[in-house]
Amino acid sequence: MTMNRTKLTEHYRYVRGQSLALVAPLSAEDCCVQSMPDASPTKWHLGHTTWFFETFILEALEERFQPFDAAFRVLFNSYYKRIGEQHPRAQRGALTRPGLDHVLAYRANVDKRMLALLDSEVVADLDRLVELGLNHEQQHQELLITDIKHLLSLNPLHPAYAAKPAATNELTILPSWQDCAGGLVEIGYTGDGFCFDNETPRHSVFLRPYKLATALVTNAEFAAFIEAGGYTQAAYWLAEGWDWQRAQARSHPMYWQQGQSGWQEFRLNGMNDLDPTLPAVHLSYFEADAYARWAQARLPTEAEWEHAVATHAAQFAQLADEAWQWTSSSYAPYPGFRAQGGALGEYNGKFMVNQYVLRGGSAATPTGHTRLSYRNFFPAGACWQFSGIRLAQDC
Amino acid sequence: MTMNRTKLTEHYRYVRGQSLALVAPLSAEDCCVQSMPDASPTKWHLGHTTWFFETFILEALEERFQPFDAAFRVLFNSYYKRIGEQHPRAQRGALTRPGLDHVLAYRANVDKRMLALLDSEVVADLDRLVELGLNHEQQHQELLITDIKHLLSLNPLHPAYAAKPAATNELTILPSWQDCAGGLVEIGYTGDGFCFDNETPRHSVFLRPYKLATALVTNAEFAAFIEAGGYTQAAYWLAEGWDWQRAQARSHPMYWQQGQSGWQEFRLNGMNDLDPTLPAVHLSYFEADAYARWAQARLPTEAEWEHAVATHAAQFAQLADEAWQWTSSSYAPYPGFRAQGGALGEYNGKFMVNQYVLRGGSAATPTGHTRLSYRNFFPAGACWQFSGIRLAQDC
Amino acid sequence: MTMNRTKLTEHYRYVRGQSLALVAPLSAEDCCVQSMPDASPTKWHLGHTTWFFETFILEALEERFQPFDAAFRVLFNSYYKRIGEQHPRAQRGALTRPGLDHVLAYRANVDKRMLALLDSEVVADLDRLVELGLNHEQQHQELLITDIKHLLSLNPLHPAYAAKPAATNELTILPSWQDCAGGLVEIGYTGDGFCFDNETPRHSVFLRPYKLATALVTNAEFAAFIEAGGYTQAAYWLAEGWDWQRAQARSHPMYWQQGQSGWQEFRLNGMNDLDPTLPAVHLSYFEADAYARWAQARLPTEAEWEHAVATHAAQFAQLADEAWQWTSSSYAPYPGFRAQGGALGEYNGKFMVNQYVLRGGSAATPTGHTRLSYRNFFPAGACWQFSGIRLAQDC
Amino acid sequence: MTMNRTKLTEHYRYVRGQSLALVAPLSAEDCCVQSMPDASPTKWHLGHTTWFFETFILEALEERFQPFDAAFRVLFNSYYKRIGEQHPRAQRGALTRPGLDHVLAYRANVDKRMLALLDSEVVADLDRLVELGLNHEQQHQELLITDIKHLLSLNPLHPAYAAKPAATNELTILPSWQDCAGGLVEIGYTGDGFCFDNETPRHSVFLRPYKLATALVTNAEFAAFIEAGGYTQAAYWLAEGWDWQRAQARSHPMYWQQGQSGWQEFRLNGMNDLDPTLPAVHLSYFEADAYARWAQARLPTEAEWEHAVATHAAQFAQLADEAWQWTSSSYAPYPGFRAQGGALGEYNGKFMVNQYVLRGGSAATPTGHTRLSYRNFFPAGACWQFSGIRLAQDC
Repeated sequence: MTMNRTKLTEHYRYVRGQSLALVAPLSAEDCCVQSMPDASPTKWHLGHTTWFFETFILEALEERFQPFDAAFRVLFNSYYKRIGEQHPRAQRGALTRPGLDHVLAYRANVDKRMLALLDSEVVADLDRLVELGLNHEQQHQELLITDIKHLLSLNPLHPAYAAKPAATNELTILPSWQDCAGGLVEIGYTGDGFCFDNETPRHSVFLRPYKLATALVTNAEFAAFIEAGGYTQAAYWLAEGWDWQRAQARSHPMYWQQGQSGWQEFRLNGMNDLDPTLPAVHLSYFEADAYARWAQARLPTEAEWEHAVATHAAQFAQLADEAWQWTSSSYAPYPGFRAQGGALGEYNGKFMVNQYVLRGGSAATPTGHTRLSYRNFFPAGACWQFSGIRLAQDC
Repeated sequence: MTMNRTKLTEHYRYVRGQSLALVAPLSAEDCCVQSMPDASPTKWHLGHTTWFFETFILEALEERFQPFDAAFRVLFNSYYKRIGEQHPRAQRGALTRPGLDHVLAYRANVDKRMLALLDSEVVADLDRLVELGLNHEQQHQELLITDIKHLLSLNPLHPAYAAKPAATNELTILPSWQDCAGGLVEIGYTGDGFCFDNETPRHSVFLRPYKLATALVTNAEFAAFIEAGGYTQAAYWLAEGWDWQRAQARSHPMYWQQGQSGWQEFRLNGMNDLDPTLPAVHLSYFEADAYARWAQARLPTEAEWEHAVATHAAQFAQLADEAWQWTSSSYAPYPGFRAQGGALGEYNGKFMVNQYVLRGGSAATPTGHTRLSYRNFFPAGACWQFSGIRLAQDC
Repeated sequence: MTMNRTKLTEHYRYVRGQSLALVAPLSAEDCCVQSMPDASPTKWHLGHTTWFFETFILEALEERFQPFDAAFRVLFNSYYKRIGEQHPRAQRGALTRPGLDHVLAYRANVDKRMLALLDSEVVADLDRLVELGLNHEQQHQELLITDIKHLLSLNPLHPAYAAKPAATNELTILPSWQDCAGGLVEIGYTGDGFCFDNETPRHSVFLRPYKLATALVTNAEFAAFIEAGGYTQAAYWLAEGWDWQRAQARSHPMYWQQGQSGWQEFRLNGMNDLDPTLPAVHLSYFEADAYARWAQARLPTEAEWEHAVATHAAQFAQLADEAWQWTSSSYAPYPGFRAQGGALGEYNGKFMVNQYVLRGGSAATPTGHTRLSYRNFFPAGACWQFSGIRLAQDC
Repeated sequence: MTMNRTKLTEHYRYVRGQSLALVAPLSAEDCCVQSMPDASPTKWHLGHTTWFFETFILEALEERFQPFDAAFRVLFNSYYKRIGEQHPRAQRGALTRPGLDHVLAYRANVDKRMLALLDSEVVADLDRLVELGLNHEQQHQELLITDIKHLLSLNPLHPAYAAKPAATNELTILPSWQDCAGGLVEIGYTGDGFCFDNETPRHSVFLRPYKLATALVTNAEFAAFIEAGGYTQAAYWLAEGWDWQRAQARSHPMYWQQGQSGWQEFRLNGMNDLDPTLPAVHLSYFEADAYARWAQARLPTEAEWEHAVATHAAQFAQLADEAWQWTSSSYAPYPGFRAQGGALGEYNGKFMVNQYVLRGGSAATPTGHTRLSYRNFFPAGACWQFSGIRLAQDC
């Protein structure tokens, strides 16, 4: 066990409370609407993360288990086919009922029962499952932010989710390259803390010598790519990436627009003049790959990323606080991978096709949620996450 | 002028209040979501009907006009291209802001200004425009009900919009045919009250002798059609209708489902066992036409419908209180039709293609809104309206 | 009977031979490919028209009937559900087998058997069915030309179907209006010759006084509409028409393109400079309606067209030799219409929804095929037919 | 240089002749039609492979180069954007002109010029480019076969491309596992013969101990998977694979159908009873992966495949003569990969996303075309290739 029970209970309160804190600036209407099939309503995130505790813990371990509402078993099941039916993903926004108040009552009810359980005698598996549930909730906290950002971006009034933050990043980070020797190295989770099954087993990978950028590509750098014809020259693009941007008539990142006096960017605090010093975010894999080719570099593999950071952590900026970093690695099982048993085996394994791994973490990631071996993954065309670029090069 | 100013002001208060009454059973979430591109959120209906008064009356006639919110000019413009840009129809559900409260404040503000205007000296055109605005609002009151019904129907919890009404229609209406002699008859609005431009000019039409059913087709009758293989035999269907129902795997009306003990129907009060005596509703033109062919009858033309009702009104049941009645008439301009001038000319005329006329009125139509010459119209595949069947036959 | 048997036999030979003459300029490859779901391969037209004789005549009347090839019953059935299954329409181009040679052998075989039958004793219905089959074949001859034109238009080499014709139409027709008094008039087929069921019964229609243009709208006139912003101003368009042209980014008729020195038009003889004196063709209903509104006129109803031509035939030019003429009439059954019995009842009746009637005839229509009461029909967005505009106006 | 000039010339004649031999059983119609956007018409394959020689060799090296037909530069360009425009891929079937005869004349003309060039003084690069062109042509020979098979499969007459072959494979291959020790191994092309750029550079990979099946999964084995509910249990499938088969209502491999007495399979010789001893082919990556999971095994990585075969070649059956073998490796650049320069750099590199590597070769692969390091690649849903399954397991 990685935390004792008291700490775990405290952490449970903290993480569950964070979800509510994220909802504070939103109206019930904001929480209900689904902006696209890929995104979920805030209310659904609140319900689903609660469902996770109710279904995988209370149902298994609570005496005289009674569901809060039998219909929620289907409504808030995301994709666990072994649990049963799911309300169709693209129809999550049609659920004006249960209302936000009712979902908040559901949360309160489950929290009360969970805290009672945590207060009881030790039950096998409980701590492990609670930790999983909290990590799961943190993943949804990040999605909640990126999903609400997408919803607000569709509104021509450009409403703000959050007030303008105090200025940060005022120091421009000077980009440079960190040399890495490569060789036969190990990646994957090691230790006795929590990790997801997809980070295991730790295994050997052979790497050639390479260099990894110490900073992320900035808005100014990405604007230079656009200026240089980046979106109009096929030679920079993967064939599928070229078709992707042509089909959508893309000529810049998702949340950018041309204003009177230059680029503007929709951010969580509304529309802003583009800050040239910030990392470029909301880039698809296709855009990241094209940029890298234009910059005479490439994306790192996930092994290169993990090994470099493990070896030279102090020398990299913006590791997990600004933007997830696309790698060129297709999301695949590690050698010897075994999904966990039961319905929870569906958590990660069944998505291991046609997605690419991102490493690090973003401004929307809850503090302390990620780690060196953490594997995020999205399809190559996804760009509503805080996804950016850390370049690599052969030595 | 068809009402004096005092009466008009009173009517203004009444109609505007009715919209609020319709919203009373709904949450802000219910009012925000768009269930399909054809339907609009309740909140949008509330805003758009208010925009209509602000744009077509206050902007023209108010001294020192200031818009309540300049952004609303685009957000709540439905399709008036001469007014300017429109927020895309299919994106109306993305507008979580302005919130319901803000839209209600918009209504209150415009009402105050409208009442002040109505209280002022007579201004040319004001009464005519107010009447149009109120008729417009009543049309949206009906859409508001059918749109919210559609939204709630998508929810697997089958929430009710309204409590179960006191039983009505307990007397089964005995169907019979009313003979009509035909000849050279006149249809179209006559009188000095309000009507829409599409009901004019009154004109002559030559009709052969025909019969019109005195009652609407019932659920029991439509169920017999299904039982007899109505949805599986192409011979009953227009070719496009056949393709329409095959593509969607339709085997019954939109809101019906098979329960343990027979057909059930989603209604405004939730899911019910099908009432065999009620008129069949939510039928597309294709279904109405197929039913008529199976029943060895046909749909009436709109001229047949109007002339029969004008001549024998007392002899028809369910004229305007249960379901709109599909006619076989394509929605087209009457001979000599002239759309009204300016942006309001877009109200009706530009939709005169690929739609079919419905006559009568429905349970969702505000009392007093329709008249003998009223022309409702929808595409042949539309079935989220309260649309049913009154059969006709040649003599 | 409208022709005696000898004449009918001679006519059979002539019409069937015409289909072969139309194919002469084409390769087997040209005859095989389907350019879009709406169009059919030439080979399929040749097979289907032959299937019509084999299925509706030989199968019914031939002693010891044996199908030429049992598979053809499905392959060449267009839409007669009472006959049985159909090869899917959109997949007609996948039928590289049977090859063109085999289909020509099919034609020769059926012709031999048909001629033997025509040479035999009189059989009830034979003459009527043969006439129908020949009229059917002539309809497909026109489709064959418009379909092959569409196919060749997709080829960047702009191949010609036919050599440049000797110059015609060198005399510009002076447009003018023919006044028509209207009143209670009759339309629909009268006489004892052949007609389609949809032209009956003859019936009374009441018309207000109107004017009908004596000539078709020319390329020069349509170019002036474009020049005046016709495709960029929503006010001229039906709402659905506007969406139709926006979705396809249309800014001119289907086969026009901008060349170095002005408009060019793809015609059956390849790419040509646009001839300003020729009638504008390949217009959709939407384009025709928008042009008419711009020209402060309107499209005629089919009753207006038929009555005017019946009364003043000598005074109209380009009635049936240049382009079909869109009317504002939705394709619907005439009052008292009865489809013919059996599978042939599917010929016309089941298409009477969401289509518009065209009158006259075109340069691609076989000589002698049409008549005053002839009703052609296509969806409002169709423009691969030779479809043009004859304007009308209220008096 | 890997062959001397005489041998190369002889090989040129042989490979180019093979393309013509493959076309022998086909009509001009068969050669013209495009069955789906993924597949190309035979005629286009014949033209494009010729265009490759004309564009990349004759244009560069021929004195006084004149294109055979200037329009072919666009018509037969597949995807080389640096060469210029391409005729749209999905419209290749619209090209009834140039006819097959004209394309064959194009082939003869280019062959004559190529042979003259090969007969001339040594020119730098010529041999290398000719080898590439011939390997390119062989790739298209395989596509020609799989594309024509797809086209014929759409024809309800089930036409045969080839006569029934003499019985082969009459000996059932006994499946077993070959143990492989793994460790730090090398993969990628080594030697001085021809290879594609994507097979380089040779590089080190670390492998854990594993087992590779000595034979391919048979039709009988795959039928057992179906029988066991393989297509109806989500647990066997990747999430995207499940959606893929549900969306298409798949319940068996692409060319299988249920006959009166069991499974039948469409093959190049027409419809056959399924041969249980033959390898299962035309499987998508999704089906291969699901089968492997059901069989408590997995797909090998491409490194595992290559290393095992390099080390134990004699012990594997059906390596390159029956079906390509899906690996779990996403198609990606090898460490240190450099695409070749110029337009030919588009040959492989730009497709390295969202595709999976297949190894080996198939019954449709020209003899001698593949090698140990050969990387074929297709999207996970592709199944019109001869693609099958060689299982792997952890030790």
